[in-house]
Amino acid sequence: MGQVAWKALFLSLFDYKTEKYVIAKNKKVGVLYRVVQLSILAYLVGWVFVVKKGYQDTDTSLQSSVITKLKGVAFTNTSELGERIWDVADYVIPPQGESVFFVMTNLIVTPNQRQATCAESDNIPDAWCDRDADCLEGEAVVAGNGVKTGRCLKDRGSTRRTCEILAWCPVEKRSKPKKPLLGSAENFTVYIKNSIRFPKFKFSKMNVLATDNESYLKSCRYSQEHPYCPIFVLGNIVRWAGGDFQEMALQGGVIGIQIEWNCDLDKAPSECNPHYSFSRLDNKSAETSISSGYNFRFAKYYRDAEGVDYRTLIKAYGIRFDVMVNGKAGKFNIIPTIINISSGLALMGAGAFFCDLVLIYLIKKSNFYRGKKYEEVKSNSRKSLSSPTLNGNQSPEQLDGL
Amino acid sequence: MGQVAWKALFLSLFDYKTEKYVIAKNKKVGVLYRVVQLSILAYLVGWVFVVKKGYQDTDTSLQSSVITKLKGVAFTNTSELGERIWDVADYVIPPQGESVFFVMTNLIVTPNQRQATCAESDNIPDAWCDRDADCLEGEAVVAGNGVKTGRCLKDRGSTRRTCEILAWCPVEKRSKPKKPLLGSAENFTVYIKNSIRFPKFKFSKMNVLATDNESYLKSCRYSQEHPYCPIFVLGNIVRWAGGDFQEMALQGGVIGIQIEWNCDLDKAPSECNPHYSFSRLDNKSAETSISSGYNFRFAKYYRDAEGVDYRTLIKAYGIRFDVMVNGKAGKFNIIPTIINISSGLALMGAGAFFCDLVLIYLIKKSNFYRGKKYEEVKSNSRKSLSSPTLNGNQSPEQLDGL
Amino acid sequence: MGQVAWKALFLSLFDYKTEKYVIAKNKKVGVLYRVVQLSILAYLVGWVFVVKKGYQDTDTSLQSSVITKLKGVAFTNTSELGERIWDVADYVIPPQGESVFFVMTNLIVTPNQRQATCAESDNIPDAWCDRDADCLEGEAVVAGNGVKTGRCLKDRGSTRRTCEILAWCPVEKRSKPKKPLLGSAENFTVYIKNSIRFPKFKFSKMNVLATDNESYLKSCRYSQEHPYCPIFVLGNIVRWAGGDFQEMALQGGVIGIQIEWNCDLDKAPSECNPHYSFSRLDNKSAETSISSGYNFRFAKYYRDAEGVDYRTLIKAYGIRFDVMVNGKAGKFNIIPTIINISSGLALMGAGAFFCDLVLIYLIKKSNFYRGKKYEEVKSNSRKSLSSPTLNGNQSPEQLDGL
Repeated sequence: MGQVAWKALFLSLFDYKTEKYVIAKNKKVGVLYRVVQLSILAYLVGWVFVVKKGYQDTDTSLQSSVITKLKGVAFTNTSELGERIWDVADYVIPPQGESVFFVMTNLIVTPNQRQATCAESDNIPDAWCDRDADCLEGEAVVAGNGVKTGRCLKDRGSTRRTCEILAWCPVEKRSKPKKPLLGSAENFTVYIKNSIRFPKFKFSKMNVLATDNESYLKSCRYSQEHPYCPIFVLGNIVRWAGGDFQEMALQGGVIGIQIEWNCDLDKAPSECNPHYSFSRLDNKSAETSISSGYNFRFAKYYRDAEGVDYRTLIKAYGIRFDVMVNGKAGKFNIIPTIINISSGLALMGAGAFFCDLVLIYLIKKSNFYRGKKYEEVKSNSRKSLSSPTLNGNQSPEQLDGL
Repeated sequence: MGQVAWKALFLSLFDYKTEKYVIAKNKKVGVLYRVVQLSILAYLVGWVFVVKKGYQDTDTSLQSSVITKLKGVAFTNTSELGERIWDVADYVIPPQGESVFFVMTNLIVTPNQRQATCAESDNIPDAWCDRDADCLEGEAVVAGNGVKTGRCLKDRGSTRRTCEILAWCPVEKRSKPKKPLLGSAENFTVYIKNSIRFPKFKFSKMNVLATDNESYLKSCRYSQEHPYCPIFVLGNIVRWAGGDFQEMALQGGVIGIQIEWNCDLDKAPSECNPHYSFSRLDNKSAETSISSGYNFRFAKYYRDAEGVDYRTLIKAYGIRFDVMVNGKAGKFNIIPTIINISSGLALMGAGAFFCDLVLIYLIKKSNFYRGKKYEEVKSNSRKSLSSPTLNGNQSPEQLDGL
Repeated sequence: MGQVAWKALFLSLFDYKTEKYVIAKNKKVGVLYRVVQLSILAYLVGWVFVVKKGYQDTDTSLQSSVITKLKGVAFTNTSELGERIWDVADYVIPPQGESVFFVMTNLIVTPNQRQATCAESDNIPDAWCDRDADCLEGEAVVAGNGVKTGRCLKDRGSTRRTCEILAWCPVEKRSKPKKPLLGSAENFTVYIKNSIRFPKFKFSKMNVLATDNESYLKSCRYSQEHPYCPIFVLGNIVRWAGGDFQEMALQGGVIGIQIEWNCDLDKAPSECNPHYSFSRLDNKSAETSISSGYNFRFAKYYRDAEGVDYRTLIKAYGIRFDVMVNGKAGKFNIIPTIINISSGLALMGAGAFFCDLVLIYLIKKSNFYRGKKYEEVKSNSRKSLSSPTLNGNQSPEQLDGL
């Protein structure tokens, strides 16, 4: 292209192209369009900005640390153990006070187990036998307590003959008590200390109010009237989760304590407070006896004067509490504000699309407006100057291009 | 402005402005545009709505609780310990049956350690010495077992002289067995009970089918044919994760059990089932001996008749299983449906942009169409009435404004 | 409709409609528009694509496994315990080496507790009494150690009379040492082994470099010069988190170790490395003495020659370390690239909207351009041919529709 052509091209870069509009003086469609615009504006301002806080940048990666501490003692009086006190070191497993802790509410104790041979428990099908040949020596009992020795015995107190096994003897035989042994765990209290930090905004907070009043924290209990006292009574927690403590204490279960922090950091820090909710995490309704409750076995190991190991096996039933912390913080930021305003403008375009449909197809004079809106052009091989046709305006400039 | 002007302005609010279009009767571009439209529609309906379920609201904040329970016994016969049975209370650490549990498969036992002075182990470089002056009294041995006393000894059974230390004596000396002691852990089974809840839709489910058939759960094993039986054989888990159990049992390792719940809540609840996958979480390939495997030391504490503390130190090797639960649920909601339809319409606009480029620049008659599409206007200081120029239509009304 | 009409309708489907534009040869608005376009393009290329990597698909669901191992010994010399060495099995709780571990730095030991009756501790308000009637038999002491027997005693060494209780006697009385007993834990080291996997891209990596040089890993320590050696000195960790080890060791606390993996998988795998940061998770500033620090109680259980249980109660203060791993990986994918380009084009539309406002309302000749851009049409009941009016172009074709 010649120099003049380059100059024309360069200058044409700074021409401004804008769409041509047709103003249809049709009040019906005009009013409809304004109504649509106002709805979209109301949605944008009301929902996106006010309710969903679309002008804020959010931080959902909450850093959290939870420290728990239980208090309470339970008194039991049984034939095996006599009068006994159970305190925190006895019933909380593990003792470290992390976000997941277990409180023992019921137990079966099998004391003084030693490595020896004895008859397997009679409620384990794989160990049932009639004669020695039914017990294959060296085979582990399926879902059992030991390895078969090859003999078939009948233990006194058993209802049937079972294989003799090498195991920690005597094996666990008792069934669990009909009422939870440590049922008074209902009155125990747990102090949950939770510190959170939103790293994006460098904001930290604790769920305990800074206060000089030490005795308040020593005696208060969480309730609707005392939302800033994170000391919870276990019975209340289970009740708020929709369960019954004594029933749950018999078989065991799992309770979730959710701590939710939703903070608007455009407001004062004192308005950023946690919200507690409680739910039962193990699903009771669908369970049969085979899979209900929560229990596990652990042992305390001792050594006698001859240096022989022996242990006390404990099958512990109880309630496991999982403290789960989540949250998000929001703070004003120009970028999400601009993005949401742009999205709102794009939605206006959808409103215009809808009103166009009404104007061109639905109203009475739609034919007229269609004719005004759409200008038909058709390129012919022969074109004559100034010959108005059905195909629209033709004028000399059409041969001049750009 | 006068009253008439205000009235005109008010009435003009209800005028409806719509873009003016040029209908180019060019079949090539028309067909191209319809093809583009159909592709975008196919993408919108096929990908966004059918595959990605764009009409659904999703909940990814799954609440989950996991309870695990192992079963199985192992028999060992060693010179130190004799014939011995290991059951759940012996080899599972910690015993609480949470989502992370460790199964001991190999161990080094150092019994009867007492607080005393003895020679440090000879494979700790910081303790090597030739004479007493090499051992600084009170200095802790780097990566060692105790604090130097200031003397340099040669223990019988050692290959070199080492500093005498105050420590739990005798120090751990044995090396681990060449074959995993508890290799029969391969046959142990773990019962994983998982309850999940999607709080947004208030939907709960367990991974165990509600059934009256207790004996099914007592004897079934998970497999492709039995996907609703969450009782897994440890050897199978390691195999499905791509590992070899006996090799992993020697050094220890970490296995991840992922439980994934992807639920379409528009379908029946019975179609919402978990999907299990297994992977090895510790990366074996890049490891040297210094960093391979998984082991830790713990101790059992006793007190003898004189009231002196002593302990048995156990260096435990084994496989740690991490149960990780995640998932999302979807349910029909009008808002994401509308949003995705709007996004589709916006994409149509991109299709129109592309076809415009073809029409105006690429096809044969592009000059003609460019002239029809773009109407040049240029404002002059002097304007004469009814003088058609190269600059487009001029008519008397141009002086009347709005 | 007749057959001709159907054919016309079918053919009209392949007409291409394109907006009509008005080219305003106004250099000011043209330059403004190009400036706006260039800014949006610069934002799109610079911010969206280069900085935020908008051309990449991301995976934020990192699978991670953490194994920790502490090393170090501490020497103490107290009147109760004499000279004593503390090693890993003594001070790390729990011993399994998971991502959360506790190092004991201070402790109160109450040895030889047996189930018996004794006077309650004198710093528990609920147990204060003047006479026997103040102590209700069978009532648990609030925040206490046992259950009241009904008698009011004065223990030698106490300052006041307290209720007699059934509990593990003698109850815990000592106060914690003024200086942390295991303060030399400052020199202990922790080896953090972290394997991660991005499942979407099937990419795995460990934070330990594969190396033949075993002795490097045995002696190196993490620092800015040695970023690939994940062996940390506890004192350094606390210092980098902004705390003082000896002060923190007295009361206890919680430290977070964040390992962040931000990997660009379009680059070489060797460029994907973890970034470590340390922070104090328990919020010291807002705390009073009632809620400061971190401690818990646990017990070691023994059995004497007569078969009577007794225990040593330990109130452990120390620092809990939480290793938290997060990260994301990105890799080029055509779909987010297309989506971001489309969003950029949509933003161009916003730029055009803004420039339209300038052209139509703000510049000097805005009236002229408004008249050119907007073509007023008004449908009348009576229309005469070829009568140019204020309402815009009229031509014979307006009666022909479509």
